[in-house]
Amino acid sequence: MKFSFTPLGCASALPTVNRFPSAHVLNVHERLFLIDCGEGCQMQIRRAGFSFLKISEIFISHIHGDHLFGIYGLLSTMSLLGRNSHIDIYAPGAFAGVLKSFMEHFGASISFKVNHIVVKCSEPKQIFETKKIEVMAFPLNHRIECYGYLFREKMPSRNVHKYKIETDSLTLYEIARLKEGMDVVRENGDMLINSEFTYQPYIPRSFAYCCDTAPFDKLPEYVKGVDLLYHEATFADDLKMMAKETFHSTATDAAQCAVDAGAKRLLLGHFSSRYKDILTILREASIVFNNSQAAEAGEEYHIDLVKPESL
Amino acid sequence: MKFSFTPLGCASALPTVNRFPSAHVLNVHERLFLIDCGEGCQMQIRRAGFSFLKISEIFISHIHGDHLFGIYGLLSTMSLLGRNSHIDIYAPGAFAGVLKSFMEHFGASISFKVNHIVVKCSEPKQIFETKKIEVMAFPLNHRIECYGYLFREKMPSRNVHKYKIETDSLTLYEIARLKEGMDVVRENGDMLINSEFTYQPYIPRSFAYCCDTAPFDKLPEYVKGVDLLYHEATFADDLKMMAKETFHSTATDAAQCAVDAGAKRLLLGHFSSRYKDILTILREASIVFNNSQAAEAGEEYHIDLVKPESL
Repeated sequence: MKFSFTPLGCASALPTVNRFPSAHVLNVHERLFLIDCGEGCQMQIRRAGFSFLKISEIFISHIHGDHLFGIYGLLSTMSLLGRNSHIDIYAPGAFAGVLKSFMEHFGASISFKVNHIVVKCSEPKQIFETKKIEVMAFPLNHRIECYGYLFREKMPSRNVHKYKIETDSLTLYEIARLKEGMDVVRENGDMLINSEFTYQPYIPRSFAYCCDTAPFDKLPEYVKGVDLLYHEATFADDLKMMAKETFHSTATDAAQCAVDAGAKRLLLGHFSSRYKDILTILREASIVFNNSQAAEAGEEYHIDLVKPESL
Repeated sequence: MKFSFTPLGCASALPTVNRFPSAHVLNVHERLFLIDCGEGCQMQIRRAGFSFLKISEIFISHIHGDHLFGIYGLLSTMSLLGRNSHIDIYAPGAFAGVLKSFMEHFGASISFKVNHIVVKCSEPKQIFETKKIEVMAFPLNHRIECYGYLFREKMPSRNVHKYKIETDSLTLYEIARLKEGMDVVRENGDMLINSEFTYQPYIPRSFAYCCDTAPFDKLPEYVKGVDLLYHEATFADDLKMMAKETFHSTATDAAQCAVDAGAKRLLLGHFSSRYKDILTILREASIVFNNSQAAEAGEEYHIDLVKPESL
């Protein structure tokens, strides 16, 4: 059951020869979520070997070009590839005008329905769910309306110990109830205590995307205990003032957020083109939060399945 | 005095891992003309080592996304790099709505004036000129309004033979008149016959861009005698019918145009993603027109300066 994050581009506003603008794929149980869609996203999706058809939801953080200009080509290509199932784009209200204009000028060639689901919240809010996962949006602190996204597995159904099925001759009905976490009273009055018959198969995993944002007090709380925190680190400490003025974060800011949130791992991205290599950024973050990594496009960052300690 | 063409992307509608959509730079005497601007154009410009600042004119063939979706990121990046001089975009009328919408949603960050010069003609028409070069637009035969562009050097000023300057004690006034191609009558009545004193320094060079288009009778006439013809070859002969239906050309069509136009060289591009390698396309074109090449992104195709035979 895969839970992995693949950055497709780690540049900030100015792409470079080696860095594409922001676009990322989150693979949760082989369902692909696209997070932001900067220019060249469709080429990077191909390069990373993802199937266009497996993408049904796109999450846009904010309406700045470096997070968005790939959407036109991506939708066109999906259509040329024969897509006919709809696509849902979660994005701030300002995306409506962009989408409308795109459909006006290029929509004749789009063979499927494109839904814009307006993201608007001032506190964390669930915006998407399936039986097994949910996505929360939460506000970020950028120059324009901007949202972060938290993807997490829901608490899984409990598994029934195999040996108990035999020793206690459990019926299908009883197994189903036990998996739902309920105790079961048998016709003869015996009580099957759930905790004696079942176990939690794995600990739900989570991933948070925070880009673009200046640091703010509530953010660590929004992403509390996340397994993998992707946080922008546009600048190093030398440009702390510029980070402040442009509502971005330094590597230190990102790392401090990871510390305050009690995140397990931190992945840094959205690097300013000023930094030809990002060793300084990585070094500064690592001083504050040891488990920091600098994102590399095309690299797949796995969040491994962990079973509860009691097992 | 450079005259060279650098394709930045040779894909047709569907980009692939190795092929970006249509975008090209024509370098005429170190002035850079951008021809079409598909997605990823700005990254390819960087990769090829061109300066964004040297681009002042953009020529858009038609309003299909694979020729255009890079314009948003390109303009944004030019602005971020501090551009303040205006840019002229030569494009069909339909571009107006696209530009208007872009400026509406992202224009606040654009620091310079973007002019749309509407291209509209049913016969070849001069749309741009400097002292040394001119650009002609001509209609193509595509599903929507679409133009080809012919770039050519004007006839250069004549050079005065150095030995004549000494032997005939030419004055600065006489040299200036002779360079303009005029005969000069001296005060003593002597006539300086231009052809005896001057020579043509080089033969004007030309480049034509024909993409996207189905073949049509008048096209070879429009690009008569061109030194380098860039012609789309979306399909090989196996998909001749599809070429016809979609108003594209096969490699054979492109080569036949080169033959009929008396072009010196043919450069094929805009390859369908169906063709993983383009050997078949190149082979089919070469049978009809020997001097054919398949365009490669990032490769600079030079048109060398040739002096008139009489020299």
